[in-house]
Amino acid sequence: MKFFICQINPIVGDIEGNTQKIIQHIKEGKQKRADVVIFPEMALCGYPADDLLFFDDFIISMEIALDQIAEYTEDITTIVGLVRKSTNEYGKRLFNTAAIIKNKKLLGFKDKTLLPTYDVFNEARYFASADKQKVWEIDKYKVGVLICEDVWSYSGLSPDAKYKVDPVKEMKTLSPDYLVVISSSPYYFEKINLRDQIYAKAASYLNCPIIACNQVGANDQLVFDGRSAYYNVKGEKVAVAKAFEEDDLFIDSNKLQEVCSIEEDPMENLYKALVLGIKDYFGKQKLTKAILGLSGGIDSAIALYLTVQALGKENVLVLNMPSRFSSLGSIEDSKKLCENLQVEMKEISIDQLFQNFLDVLSPYFLGKSFDTAEENLQARIRGMILMAMSNKFGYIVISTGNKSEMAMGYATLYGDMCGGLGVLVDVPKTLVYDLARWINKKNEIIPQNILTKAPSAELKEGQTDQDSLPEYNIVDKVLHGYIQNHSSKQQIAKTYHLSEKLVDDLIHKVHLAEYKRRQAPPCIRVTKTSFGRGRYFPIVQGWVK
Amino acid sequence: MKFFICQINPIVGDIEGNTQKIIQHIKEGKQKRADVVIFPEMALCGYPADDLLFFDDFIISMEIALDQIAEYTEDITTIVGLVRKSTNEYGKRLFNTAAIIKNKKLLGFKDKTLLPTYDVFNEARYFASADKQKVWEIDKYKVGVLICEDVWSYSGLSPDAKYKVDPVKEMKTLSPDYLVVISSSPYYFEKINLRDQIYAKAASYLNCPIIACNQVGANDQLVFDGRSAYYNVKGEKVAVAKAFEEDDLFIDSNKLQEVCSIEEDPMENLYKALVLGIKDYFGKQKLTKAILGLSGGIDSAIALYLTVQALGKENVLVLNMPSRFSSLGSIEDSKKLCENLQVEMKEISIDQLFQNFLDVLSPYFLGKSFDTAEENLQARIRGMILMAMSNKFGYIVISTGNKSEMAMGYATLYGDMCGGLGVLVDVPKTLVYDLARWINKKNEIIPQNILTKAPSAELKEGQTDQDSLPEYNIVDKVLHGYIQNHSSKQQIAKTYHLSEKLVDDLIHKVHLAEYKRRQAPPCIRVTKTSFGRGRYFPIVQGWVK
Repeated sequence: MKFFICQINPIVGDIEGNTQKIIQHIKEGKQKRADVVIFPEMALCGYPADDLLFFDDFIISMEIALDQIAEYTEDITTIVGLVRKSTNEYGKRLFNTAAIIKNKKLLGFKDKTLLPTYDVFNEARYFASADKQKVWEIDKYKVGVLICEDVWSYSGLSPDAKYKVDPVKEMKTLSPDYLVVISSSPYYFEKINLRDQIYAKAASYLNCPIIACNQVGANDQLVFDGRSAYYNVKGEKVAVAKAFEEDDLFIDSNKLQEVCSIEEDPMENLYKALVLGIKDYFGKQKLTKAILGLSGGIDSAIALYLTVQALGKENVLVLNMPSRFSSLGSIEDSKKLCENLQVEMKEISIDQLFQNFLDVLSPYFLGKSFDTAEENLQARIRGMILMAMSNKFGYIVISTGNKSEMAMGYATLYGDMCGGLGVLVDVPKTLVYDLARWINKKNEIIPQNILTKAPSAELKEGQTDQDSLPEYNIVDKVLHGYIQNHSSKQQIAKTYHLSEKLVDDLIHKVHLAEYKRRQAPPCIRVTKTSFGRGRYFPIVQGWVK
Repeated sequence: MKFFICQINPIVGDIEGNTQKIIQHIKEGKQKRADVVIFPEMALCGYPADDLLFFDDFIISMEIALDQIAEYTEDITTIVGLVRKSTNEYGKRLFNTAAIIKNKKLLGFKDKTLLPTYDVFNEARYFASADKQKVWEIDKYKVGVLICEDVWSYSGLSPDAKYKVDPVKEMKTLSPDYLVVISSSPYYFEKINLRDQIYAKAASYLNCPIIACNQVGANDQLVFDGRSAYYNVKGEKVAVAKAFEEDDLFIDSNKLQEVCSIEEDPMENLYKALVLGIKDYFGKQKLTKAILGLSGGIDSAIALYLTVQALGKENVLVLNMPSRFSSLGSIEDSKKLCENLQVEMKEISIDQLFQNFLDVLSPYFLGKSFDTAEENLQARIRGMILMAMSNKFGYIVISTGNKSEMAMGYATLYGDMCGGLGVLVDVPKTLVYDLARWINKKNEIIPQNILTKAPSAELKEGQTDQDSLPEYNIVDKVLHGYIQNHSSKQQIAKTYHLSEKLVDDLIHKVHLAEYKRRQAPPCIRVTKTSFGRGRYFPIVQGWVK
């Protein structure tokens, strides 16, 4: 059989645009004489569509779009992900489903059985569960269809594997010749070859090839990496689509050969995920221009580099906004970086404005010493200038803080936290350094001085982050234990040979900053547990005191 | 039987403090010679505890606390809500459960069967479902225990009623003499007597009294109204605890008399919910002082009034921050209101700072006309001053915008949207006016002028909200149709006799402002569908173009 796997990048909610894209690919599939053309989970509406799914007219639009698509299916079986009304007597109103269409006729739907409701997934909010598996006869072969999580349970590798039913085991009883799996399975840094392992187990258990089509693109904090693939009966991956970009895979199952051996570079993945996150945030909103404050520190340097890669140097404006506390080195480093990247930098000193605020506030601050109030004033003046330029000229402000700072509350709410997108909000400080070194591997793009100087907000004389924090490699270990593994402070202290007092202080800081993060710009989720989507934490709580 | 219903206000995560409170009430129950003492759903950890539930040590703490509590249960049956590890082979790791303890011995657990996963509820993320119902023999009576949603399905009044099993029907087969229902069921404006209807149906169907204990207090955007009650076998409410405050209800089932007839005042409910929301946000974090910018408009006036009621006039500082566009009337009205409420008001003109920013930006803004950039500068300077006072003196900034403005994007991100708590973020403009009139019913506390003048942000000469918006009663209708009912624009236009173009424009504005709301301070949820907890909307989307 000839399969045409269409790894498309849909826009959430843009049923019209996504439909046109799907039709275009079906036409291509026909030209290539494919037997089956396949699209990702919820390709018609984009994943995750969230509460858009509560609108009846949104669901009806998908029915109409499906009819349109059917018109193009002469002589080609089309498998496409969408959402439809549930036919169950009980449970939620909708199914996450795959439509199987051929010769302008709907052959049927295969609804999703296992509904992930953990981490960034919230499917139990919307969907009812399919209660049985099916196969379709396509060109005299039995083709089974499953959706994403449905395949995960069998492997035992799902984070939430304790489902009562296993669609893969049920599928076994139907003896499929091929299994098509459509998915919208997002990327995160720690997830390497996980889908390969899962599909390999299912393919060899079912003794049939798996044709896997995964969504690509960034949608509301999540980045989908694509990597659609074909696995043979032994579970070996013998064809794979590109990562982090739209790609099509044409496969003739009679002509399959060598096993793919692709060495993944985790840093390249991270880089591509972040760039795609920026590109799609802008492109899908038809936004083009970004503005960013460059401090001379590593975070804004990396954020700038990524933004330039995503949007092009001509679409990025940099502001350097020194105060009385900015070191000469910081200004020089910023200039050097902008030269390296050939982006425009304007310098706007904030010192006079800072003085103006101090003057206005002096009757109230009388006798009080310099503290975070004055520090934050500087960060907020910078935020105001960036936002003023944004409002006047339509630039979107890029927020540059990293995950470790966001965890510790080392960021000024309404100051450096201003922005439409927090590019590094899910990248821990140590990983920011790794990324900088990876970027500099061939040429020194990020001035070396930026990598070697001590991290500092430069909001008061001689300040460095380590005045009140341990080294970031320690901070990041504790955060990994606490945020990602939900370990107790005793466990964390033991694992990393740290004092309980130190761990306790850091965890305390994490909770104190919850109110800030609640008002942070959306991030690009690149680790297993981000501070954005998929994390629900009370601000008011008495557990960490 | 003698029941002691303890409608407590737990702090989320404060297992230690909540345990002490529970023990205190058990002691009181003993003094009153109660047979059974009852606490709300998840009383031990507070509801909702969200992702705190992922920490093993958090769950273990509840086991330990339960042992402590058991020590005080000599001669008194104690029913208390908590979370425990699931004993199911499949599904999530935890049960939302009720422990039944007597004479220092655990008689057993009754786990929750129906797990709300809609609206503000997310229980499928955490909990496994109990598969059967139970009764306990207490003093020779059969007492059944159900948890919140378990009772809702039978009535058909649950928003998500299509559950496969019905615990009430299953309970019927066990013929209980009494049914104890523990809950954490939040308030919203439109919800009047809904629980009464639900409990009435269940009581008369089961032909047994229902003893209902509901959580009270505000926890992370939700306000729980209490109103614990006793329903007789006919489903009539014959005793009820206070609304919006801690209260205990001692009931001797042999001595029950008249049916309660309580006329609810929806405006009083709204007022109490908002005040409790503020009070608990501050009190549970041990914060005392608030600061607020008074503009002379109705929103900041009502927000101030509510804050003063919640925290006391001595704990509230008001800033009036006029610019060149502030009308004399606004300043006078602000003064008058502060006199009425006896709160301190300081006046800090922002005009010089505004001019300073214009000067600094003038080389970049050359030839550009005055627009939102300059408007937002003013709002952001005000935000900065409030935040500077907050940072210096520990005041929490109260954000004063209402729901209609937040919907329309008529608020400045990092400006008037600054704050720890958005007091009116879930109150539509028309309801703000209703609340003002209710407040003024006895005495004119809110100066009449504030109620009658045209709403204006006063960020440019002669500006009013209605320059670019229809009247707020129209805006609020459209919002109700769209936000709450998920109606299509055609349906909304038809229902309210509006042009589709107008409805379309307003809906378009709602989506354009999604990025602002994502960074809004937490609100106090008082309507069925708030912009905070329980609403998941993509920023980047192609549905509303």
